[in-house]
Amino acid sequence: MTIQEKALEMHKQWNGKIETAAKSHVRSREDLSIAYTPGVSEPCKVIAEDPEAAYTYTMKSNTVAVVSDGSAVLGLGNIGALAAMPVMEGKAVLFKEFGGVNAVPICLDTQDTDEIIRTVVNIAPAFGGVNLEDISAPRCFEIEERLKQLLNIPVFHDDQHGTAIVVLAGIINALKVTGKHKETVKVVVNGAGSAGVAITKLLLQYGFAHVTMCDINGIISKDSPGLNWMQKRMTEVTNLENKTGTLADALKGADIFVGVSAPGIVSKEMVASMNQDAILFAMANPVPEIMPDLAKEAGAKVVGTGRSDFPNQVNNVVAFPGIFKGALEGRAIQITEEMKLAAALAIAGLVPDEELNENNILPEAFDPRVADVVSRAVRDHI
Amino acid sequence: MTIQEKALEMHKQWNGKIETAAKSHVRSREDLSIAYTPGVSEPCKVIAEDPEAAYTYTMKSNTVAVVSDGSAVLGLGNIGALAAMPVMEGKAVLFKEFGGVNAVPICLDTQDTDEIIRTVVNIAPAFGGVNLEDISAPRCFEIEERLKQLLNIPVFHDDQHGTAIVVLAGIINALKVTGKHKETVKVVVNGAGSAGVAITKLLLQYGFAHVTMCDINGIISKDSPGLNWMQKRMTEVTNLENKTGTLADALKGADIFVGVSAPGIVSKEMVASMNQDAILFAMANPVPEIMPDLAKEAGAKVVGTGRSDFPNQVNNVVAFPGIFKGALEGRAIQITEEMKLAAALAIAGLVPDEELNENNILPEAFDPRVADVVSRAVRDHI
Repeated sequence: MTIQEKALEMHKQWNGKIETAAKSHVRSREDLSIAYTPGVSEPCKVIAEDPEAAYTYTMKSNTVAVVSDGSAVLGLGNIGALAAMPVMEGKAVLFKEFGGVNAVPICLDTQDTDEIIRTVVNIAPAFGGVNLEDISAPRCFEIEERLKQLLNIPVFHDDQHGTAIVVLAGIINALKVTGKHKETVKVVVNGAGSAGVAITKLLLQYGFAHVTMCDINGIISKDSPGLNWMQKRMTEVTNLENKTGTLADALKGADIFVGVSAPGIVSKEMVASMNQDAILFAMANPVPEIMPDLAKEAGAKVVGTGRSDFPNQVNNVVAFPGIFKGALEGRAIQITEEMKLAAALAIAGLVPDEELNENNILPEAFDPRVADVVSRAVRDHI
Repeated sequence: MTIQEKALEMHKQWNGKIETAAKSHVRSREDLSIAYTPGVSEPCKVIAEDPEAAYTYTMKSNTVAVVSDGSAVLGLGNIGALAAMPVMEGKAVLFKEFGGVNAVPICLDTQDTDEIIRTVVNIAPAFGGVNLEDISAPRCFEIEERLKQLLNIPVFHDDQHGTAIVVLAGIINALKVTGKHKETVKVVVNGAGSAGVAITKLLLQYGFAHVTMCDINGIISKDSPGLNWMQKRMTEVTNLENKTGTLADALKGADIFVGVSAPGIVSKEMVASMNQDAILFAMANPVPEIMPDLAKEAGAKVVGTGRSDFPNQVNNVVAFPGIFKGALEGRAIQITEEMKLAAALAIAGLVPDEELNENNILPEAFDPRVADVVSRAVRDHI
């Protein structure tokens, strides 16, 4: 059986990858009168007096909503809310298995920005956080920004920030391996959707001085036609020399390539035109922008992908469970830039210097230390 | 410790009465590639082609949303969404413990009818059913009716129909005990909110010919001032002689009293004025409209209350878990009147004739047969 066939068969057997479980069992009249009426009135009354008490007496303390409108699901695109369910259930499984966080899939039968925002605000009381997932750009930026303003619980679009945090962690370690420095390296980010924008922002935040974004039309500059509002905003902080040209032009003399774009679009020649000891994160899935062996042949020093069958896998699962675990435990009202940077440094720090090499720049997804270390880093920055 | 103190303490320890649990564990790379990427794409693609497949591959098949706006919570009134959480979590526990149904508390930060309806429609894809809870009348009627039209999954306001089903079950058996007949008995329902209206409707549906509703101002007639649209609608099918007067007037010569109203408002004199072998369901909580011993002294034959410390407890928990279990298993798109009647008859049928007496007209809440019998009755009427 292929993975695909096995996945279909197992999803049928599971018939839902998550379920609810009672922490308070109801096996006697006394149980019932404590967990339900009349006893349940007591925590209700306390919360009515003091909303903060919801974190003491209800699941809000450790539960996130995994919210998607199904508009940008994996590589499948706009398949809608119902078809996005297996992914959101999978995410909920990872939240629980890796971070001990309860997560509820909420797939929305609307792709209207205002409607999505209103709906999430309306359902927020039950949840301690909102993980946005697989919402297409540029709507995802506005939805996240407005929800952050409207809600007093953390809102986090994982496709943006989870990816950005893990990429930054990988780059931090790749710089150590290559002896390069964030202030001087030239970085090219190819792909200007949710992940590309968030990666670029976080790299700048961390102190990278020279970042250029590209999309399907080549280098993004102030003069590029057809940019959305977020891409326009990014032209104020990237490509400061306002260069124009193709991706190949951008890569000449660059040190780092970050691809969240399309299979096979980087050639050996392009890699050869980069500076010595080039670093490539080729994260198109399942087929990267360039295969690691080809990139190495062309002179790259460090190559990461989204795949588990090559070294240096960039996998969000090392970030989001720990991020929310820390935010919930510490009662953060927002996931700040400082927390994201701290999380990236914590992830990078899990690979000790003596084990660090070009094929080992990121911890394993299954490293049992990850979620705790990340959550502690987040808590320390609340 | 009182029940109240114990309830508060236990709610603190639980810190949420329900949690999510993974059915698919992720302990290896292969696990991850089957439950999440890349394997998860397969069920997504199948559902995108055929929405029905969501019932095969996702939790939709066995999960309901427990939706409240916190406007009419237990005896506490309008305490809002957050303070309603302990009740909705309790309900979710009962769904799981009694019916094996997954239930997710959704407490809404809005009490606007249109907004509630839109929000529930928007989040519906993840759920196989919607249990509305503790929403004040008359908004609850409109919300339920419009949601039933808009959604193709069962929508059920438990405060209305759960209560009505159990009351009808109790009355069916009380008629057997007293030898009275639905076509000839006179019924008085006191309280014209969600439960009172739904009980009246279901009694009429079952074939009771003479039902009179009362509220705080006495008998509801076509001439009563200040009725809401639902109460006005009810005047077309109740109190066909268009009588006026007080509750005491209504009870003279009545056979059955159903109270979903206020403590202590029925006197011994009123009971004495009823027909011989009167049947009373005095369900104000925690203090009934009349205490069972007083009612018996005044001549009542059968007395039921909402309390577990008296005989004949009317407890919704014998209805809603089995109703949704049956509806979900049978893929019903609505809970119909036929299903409600079948559920009431199934519940009544659990007390065999030889065990039936004035102190034993309803099965115990903890009777392990209840949910299965009710779910089978519902499935048989899909």
